[in-house]
Amino acid sequence: MKIAMNDKRAGSRVWKMAFPGFLIACLVAATIATERAAEPPAQKPATMAEIVAAAKPDDWRALDPENTLYMELAGGRVVIELSPAFAPRHAANVKALAREHYFDGLAIIRVQDNYVAQWGDPGAEDPQAARKVQCAQKTLAAEFDRAIDAAIPFTPLPDGDVYAAEVGFSAGFPVARDKGSGRMWLTHCYGMVGAGRGNASDSGGGTDIYVVIGQAPRHLDRNCTLFGRVVQGMELLSSLPRGSGPMGFYEETEPLVPIRSIRVAADVPLAERSELEILRTESEAFRRLIEARRNRCEEWFLFQAGRIEICNVPVPLRSKSAAAGK
Amino acid sequence: MKIAMNDKRAGSRVWKMAFPGFLIACLVAATIATERAAEPPAQKPATMAEIVAAAKPDDWRALDPENTLYMELAGGRVVIELSPAFAPRHAANVKALAREHYFDGLAIIRVQDNYVAQWGDPGAEDPQAARKVQCAQKTLAAEFDRAIDAAIPFTPLPDGDVYAAEVGFSAGFPVARDKGSGRMWLTHCYGMVGAGRGNASDSGGGTDIYVVIGQAPRHLDRNCTLFGRVVQGMELLSSLPRGSGPMGFYEETEPLVPIRSIRVAADVPLAERSELEILRTESEAFRRLIEARRNRCEEWFLFQAGRIEICNVPVPLRSKSAAAGK
Repeated sequence: MKIAMNDKRAGSRVWKMAFPGFLIACLVAATIATERAAEPPAQKPATMAEIVAAAKPDDWRALDPENTLYMELAGGRVVIELSPAFAPRHAANVKALAREHYFDGLAIIRVQDNYVAQWGDPGAEDPQAARKVQCAQKTLAAEFDRAIDAAIPFTPLPDGDVYAAEVGFSAGFPVARDKGSGRMWLTHCYGMVGAGRGNASDSGGGTDIYVVIGQAPRHLDRNCTLFGRVVQGMELLSSLPRGSGPMGFYEETEPLVPIRSIRVAADVPLAERSELEILRTESEAFRRLIEARRNRCEEWFLFQAGRIEICNVPVPLRSKSAAAGK
Repeated sequence: MKIAMNDKRAGSRVWKMAFPGFLIACLVAATIATERAAEPPAQKPATMAEIVAAAKPDDWRALDPENTLYMELAGGRVVIELSPAFAPRHAANVKALAREHYFDGLAIIRVQDNYVAQWGDPGAEDPQAARKVQCAQKTLAAEFDRAIDAAIPFTPLPDGDVYAAEVGFSAGFPVARDKGSGRMWLTHCYGMVGAGRGNASDSGGGTDIYVVIGQAPRHLDRNCTLFGRVVQGMELLSSLPRGSGPMGFYEETEPLVPIRSIRVAADVPLAERSELEILRTESEAFRRLIEARRNRCEEWFLFQAGRIEICNVPVPLRSKSAAAGK
């Protein structure tokens, strides 16, 4: 893996720790692949970047604005894709909450290292100060899992899983299945978004939301309703200061992180939208990507794992403008 | 799971998202367990906090000051335990580098979201400006794995692993084994510390160091030499701003994060040391902890995973002073 030394500061460091694949050497390779049009190299195994560059226009899908949330923070925008297929009630309710401006002016109130960031109403305990829920639901019945349905796409992974009988991807989301019980569910990978709850299964509903910022806490699978996934802007949440209170809640002495707004993308003027496309996890390109990640062909890799765990599979994202300029 | 509402701001939030177990409800339970001395409850399965509280003094070991590094940042101290059992040459060389003050005044130069933070010499590319290695080695032969040895402790996990034939813990470190090849190696879990390298296996040595800050990148196992583990202060690294350059390197316009010093704990005056103890992963208490994490008995959990993945097992840490005050 050769890397252009285009930056005095970072050059030799990039060379010294050149393992992430997607960004540098593979972008060089991707340029080559693009020049060859959609034809993958015949002999040499393709890298993820080559596969992504060679993907056909139909392998990509735009985010549905009716299914996308924008959370605006001082640092920028977090883009969340909802999963009505797995959590129809929660996806609808969080949209309803956004549309009544429930979240605007609330805050991120908890960041626990290697676990979750969480947002909601810092004043929820005070009946006078608490933000009122208007037309949305305060709480909902849980949507921890759902019935397996042939209409729900599923691209399986071949290497098993510690927690579930079967794992794979469905419309961009990491999913586990158990044919024995006939159930399937979203899995707690990095960036997955869920509804906080109390002890009762129906005590959550989307007024309190968390996102996974560390090692996948898979023991939460089927204990919480996951209803979405951060597709852009994760670093705005994962790099926040950790709260010093119990479970990472911010103490009174620590500044909360204000939420300017959460909007449904469809309600945002076209010119202000983040026009993003996701590689279809049902595409042949994504199946090839899985193989490329199981066996990394980049020169840096001296040992190929030959296996991959579900939360280590990246789902490629691109901006529409970048795609148009290709 | 009932939680005292001891903080106006956080109270209801704690109650709404009360899943991490270790900290709140379990501390309440731990108090009860402590009052009952070392006798665990007869019927009810114990929580991790109860098990930790009931652990015997011999179940704990102090960090060896000759085997511990302190990295001092503006935000505080990061404590790293070295693993001479798995990486004797790298552990010795990083200590030699620390003892010749190689790292003092260098910087964290890269933070890539959901992957690694990395430190080293920002001026390494400029032969005039580059920090000189004096008595230590610039590079070393790799220590990607080692022979299985009955003298190396190993506490196995019962639920398998996506990447390796067998996984477990050895002296506090997450480890994989393959009896077929007779080899064992440290695994890339959150907080593990390794030596960056170029394409050649022997091009690293400890002048460039990375730490895992996201989902375990297990495809790096046996591709990099892991030689240590952050036992305290991870949040000082994981919450740093992500670099906006390729692979998370900081661009020229972004401030680097200076390293005040890296010292071997044995070289630090007694009064300034972090006196920490780790629950022995060879103890019966740790074996019980594994079971408590496979099947979470806290009231909040409605579904018990019944399984656990290696990078989700916490290794309890306590300060000596807290232990003495018990």
